[in-house]
Amino acid sequence: TVFDSAIRAGWTDRMEKGLFRYQLSALETRVLPGFQDVHVMIFVGFGFLMTFLKRYSFGGVGFNFLIAAFGLQWALLMQGWFHHLGDDGKISINVYSMINADFCVAGCLIAYGALLGKVSPVQLMVLTLFGVTLFAVEEYIILNLIYAKDAGGSMVIHTFGAYYGLAISWMLYRPNLDQSSRLQGSVYHSDVFAMIGTLFLWMFWPSFNSAITEHGDGQHRAAINTYLSLASTVLTAVAVSSVYQKHGKLDMVHIQNATLAGGVAVGTAAEFMLMPYGSLIVGFCCGILSTLGYIYITPFLEKYLKIQDTCGIHNLHAMPGVIGGIVGAITAAAASESVYGTEGIKLFKFPPAQQGGHQAGALCVALCFGIGGGILVGAILRLPIWGDPADDNCFDDESYWEVPEEEESIPAVMQ
Amino acid sequence: TVFDSAIRAGWTDRMEKGLFRYQLSALETRVLPGFQDVHVMIFVGFGFLMTFLKRYSFGGVGFNFLIAAFGLQWALLMQGWFHHLGDDGKISINVYSMINADFCVAGCLIAYGALLGKVSPVQLMVLTLFGVTLFAVEEYIILNLIYAKDAGGSMVIHTFGAYYGLAISWMLYRPNLDQSSRLQGSVYHSDVFAMIGTLFLWMFWPSFNSAITEHGDGQHRAAINTYLSLASTVLTAVAVSSVYQKHGKLDMVHIQNATLAGGVAVGTAAEFMLMPYGSLIVGFCCGILSTLGYIYITPFLEKYLKIQDTCGIHNLHAMPGVIGGIVGAITAAAASESVYGTEGIKLFKFPPAQQGGHQAGALCVALCFGIGGGILVGAILRLPIWGDPADDNCFDDESYWEVPEEEESIPAVMQ
Amino acid sequence: TVFDSAIRAGWTDRMEKGLFRYQLSALETRVLPGFQDVHVMIFVGFGFLMTFLKRYSFGGVGFNFLIAAFGLQWALLMQGWFHHLGDDGKISINVYSMINADFCVAGCLIAYGALLGKVSPVQLMVLTLFGVTLFAVEEYIILNLIYAKDAGGSMVIHTFGAYYGLAISWMLYRPNLDQSSRLQGSVYHSDVFAMIGTLFLWMFWPSFNSAITEHGDGQHRAAINTYLSLASTVLTAVAVSSVYQKHGKLDMVHIQNATLAGGVAVGTAAEFMLMPYGSLIVGFCCGILSTLGYIYITPFLEKYLKIQDTCGIHNLHAMPGVIGGIVGAITAAAASESVYGTEGIKLFKFPPAQQGGHQAGALCVALCFGIGGGILVGAILRLPIWGDPADDNCFDDESYWEVPEEEESIPAVMQ
Repeated sequence: TVFDSAIRAGWTDRMEKGLFRYQLSALETRVLPGFQDVHVMIFVGFGFLMTFLKRYSFGGVGFNFLIAAFGLQWALLMQGWFHHLGDDGKISINVYSMINADFCVAGCLIAYGALLGKVSPVQLMVLTLFGVTLFAVEEYIILNLIYAKDAGGSMVIHTFGAYYGLAISWMLYRPNLDQSSRLQGSVYHSDVFAMIGTLFLWMFWPSFNSAITEHGDGQHRAAINTYLSLASTVLTAVAVSSVYQKHGKLDMVHIQNATLAGGVAVGTAAEFMLMPYGSLIVGFCCGILSTLGYIYITPFLEKYLKIQDTCGIHNLHAMPGVIGGIVGAITAAAASESVYGTEGIKLFKFPPAQQGGHQAGALCVALCFGIGGGILVGAILRLPIWGDPADDNCFDDESYWEVPEEEESIPAVMQ
Repeated sequence: TVFDSAIRAGWTDRMEKGLFRYQLSALETRVLPGFQDVHVMIFVGFGFLMTFLKRYSFGGVGFNFLIAAFGLQWALLMQGWFHHLGDDGKISINVYSMINADFCVAGCLIAYGALLGKVSPVQLMVLTLFGVTLFAVEEYIILNLIYAKDAGGSMVIHTFGAYYGLAISWMLYRPNLDQSSRLQGSVYHSDVFAMIGTLFLWMFWPSFNSAITEHGDGQHRAAINTYLSLASTVLTAVAVSSVYQKHGKLDMVHIQNATLAGGVAVGTAAEFMLMPYGSLIVGFCCGILSTLGYIYITPFLEKYLKIQDTCGIHNLHAMPGVIGGIVGAITAAAASESVYGTEGIKLFKFPPAQQGGHQAGALCVALCFGIGGGILVGAILRLPIWGDPADDNCFDDESYWEVPEEEESIPAVMQ
Repeated sequence: TVFDSAIRAGWTDRMEKGLFRYQLSALETRVLPGFQDVHVMIFVGFGFLMTFLKRYSFGGVGFNFLIAAFGLQWALLMQGWFHHLGDDGKISINVYSMINADFCVAGCLIAYGALLGKVSPVQLMVLTLFGVTLFAVEEYIILNLIYAKDAGGSMVIHTFGAYYGLAISWMLYRPNLDQSSRLQGSVYHSDVFAMIGTLFLWMFWPSFNSAITEHGDGQHRAAINTYLSLASTVLTAVAVSSVYQKHGKLDMVHIQNATLAGGVAVGTAAEFMLMPYGSLIVGFCCGILSTLGYIYITPFLEKYLKIQDTCGIHNLHAMPGVIGGIVGAITAAAASESVYGTEGIKLFKFPPAQQGGHQAGALCVALCFGIGGGILVGAILRLPIWGDPADDNCFDDESYWEVPEEEESIPAVMQ
């Protein structure tokens, strides 16, 4: 409206106290629903996905809340300095900043998945502090120096975050973790709580992958591709889970996690001309691979590589993230004017073959930042000053929370 | 933008591998929030509504997830062949396709409600395969041959889905189901889980009924009417529940289910000139009827008609769906230029009285497809090849899931 | 579209039966996502936040559902008479009416928080009936007579609702409430359920505070300010909780409640030029204050002022609401053309200093209506006709719900 335009014109060049400045435009208001969907994924999706442990639900959802709220403020600063810094040293802030901050935090929450139950809240804050910083640099290199595209963050978010967490977990290896093995499983209701997280992640993933794409067709394509990929992932995850369990029973761990792999794996290519059949194929394969990962690779990693991965982020984020980067590189390299049209090909900075190379390079950058950063931060976290729990107190909320008394004592009282 | 238009112009006539084709327009991006709301209803709403059984929460939310993800892919194909098939044999796909696929799946999930705990996942896949196919034919007849209107699907979704499920349940009657009666109830926390489903269904129903209406006024009206109808349903459902229980206590089953009946019953008429007071009356009556259904009709159906209806879909979907169809027919027949305006009356294909007849005919089609299709599919599901659970294993996740050990063993370990 | 315009033009002056009339415009359809977000906060947010008690989860989420559904219908009438009444005695109804009705209900749900577990459903209906009426009058005075601005309702909703509830709780003081002290705590899973409420409130608060602001920049600013304030609140709430507990453990009550105080406290000023750093400071302070409130003030209120505040709404709504009103008054008074621009200053009815005074006056009105109305309604609720629970039946769903048998009996049956 005229009224609003006048406000905007009036103050943007005047009211600039502190580090931040509003950067508003009418268009961005339309993005608010997409932002709220992403926000739900970060806080309810990741949070409740991590409530599956029988006695670490408070830590799962509570520490997720803490480090996400901390991380997004730090991310606004870090991403602001790299991307939105004006000539006057102020950081512009708008709805896209908020979505990008949530994305940035997602990387650290993925890393938390590998460490769930084995670290203290202070260690998580340190992990987030460094993780957000590394993320901002990595993102700047991938998007602004290499000119790769990564709308849904297969590389920038998932590959980076997963290898960051796995490397930290490798550095913090606990040989005697089996002392708390009695607490490493789930109970009936904690598995149902975790399904809240799974479903909100699954449902809003189309919004996640399309939130910062070019408004219009690109966004539309990204939502459709993600929707299809996720749908086919569910089928193969269930099928493989049933085939590999005794008596054909399903394992809740697979349903909670492997069903999401398809959303990770189309993150990069979702806005490209992946086509519906391409999305279905990617989802189909990732459902199989991710479930097999839970059955074979996670025990292997723990036994031989000394990587203890509580939530199995290697299967849900690392492998599908790398696949997503490769699919993105291939799809970009295979782009042609006959598919995208003369103008459409300008989605890419470079000719298709070269763009494919840049996409592959971006994947390597994400891997290097993840593994390298994780080893570095892991070394810091090994210092004996962070108050991490003893081996037999892992996966136990008693360490960090006032836990209410057992339910078992109620009926006695009530009768 | 020019950029996007150019992409679209460039590739729509070229890039057409596989069965599907993107069909994009700037307008449809605006529909994404509505799509996400419907998506939440299908996966969290229906899923958690079915977690109320003490030992079938995994099956409720997990199988709901499985068959919804399977069904929506099949629905994209089926509905595509009937509605969106281009001259070149490709199916166009856009956000409306995704919403319609979710709607289509809703019919099968309603049917699942009648069978909850008594069928195997393979039977559910078969149910969904046939259900989606029947739905697509029925929808084509109702919308494209009879030219009835049914924005919220009172007839197309709820009446069809409910009678489909009830007919299957009748075919699969288990005389000795009381052998698993110890598992047919809820426990305290499973009832709270079910409230998650109830509330997300209740809250997003305005989006459901308005998702595929004409953008603008029709959508707006549909949302308002649904909101009002649902609000008044809650009051009468609570009142009737209290009056008919001993000591005036409330029954969670009624609160979880009967409070939703108003949303079903305004599905057809929501986009018409039902007017706010009309919506309130419809919701008022349906809250009473649905709650009385749980108290009197469900036991009657089981005892005399041999229809075992686990979730009481007869009370939540079948009766309100039929009422919704009748209300729609009356509202359409009563339309006049003085109400809708000279142009507004063109919402209907025919003059009001005739349109009312077509609406009534559509209701009959939905009933026939539901009952007929259910008997047919029920006969198929009676074949002894589908691995259905024994009578004393019904309502028990142990049959199909790796269930974690009892919570009761925790405190002993922890002390 | 032309079609829709024609409908609108055609019927608005004709179809007017009953009390209500649709009032539609194309613009408002865009508001639907914001409405759905607010709706989620009212029903899932408030509802699940109140499930934390070990044996009052049904009452928390169920009665919340009941009185919200009742209250919003009454609010449509009440607010309609004050704000949207046409010359012909009809009330116009559109998406903004629905959002405002939800806002109005929020005040009563806040009041319920103080009384949770100690009142009967009939008392809650009476509380809501009077609460909505008082709210409508108070809102009319503040917005339409005093011309104060209060987009997120720090004063109109939170201050009024909290003091209304606290005054009623004072009138209904139960000296022997410790007879049900065994039920006043939480259990492990009920605390996780409450986190569902916390997170949905926290996540959608940016939509809440921006839902009825001027479309465009004001809405945008409100969302950003709320997002930042809430993020910083989480950090200080966690920090203070840890510092004041023995062994540095976190208390779930603080995480569930105090993390939300920042959203309350920027409610009034969110659409003003509070600036990002201002929002962060407000959130920072409120996190500290609210957590200290749970530790020191709630026991003090109960012991010396005889106010029993089950959910601690004094810390989450009353104090932050008053702070929000003060921050709003200061921000308004400090407005200058150099900040808002010549036109922007017209956001206010009066010159800045005077507007600040009006804002402060509005806060007093909210306080008076809350305390005065609460004492009045509390006196009514003390009549011995409402079926309130005995002191030793408080916080117990058994009084009003058919509660399923104990979980403890399952394993015995299953073995």
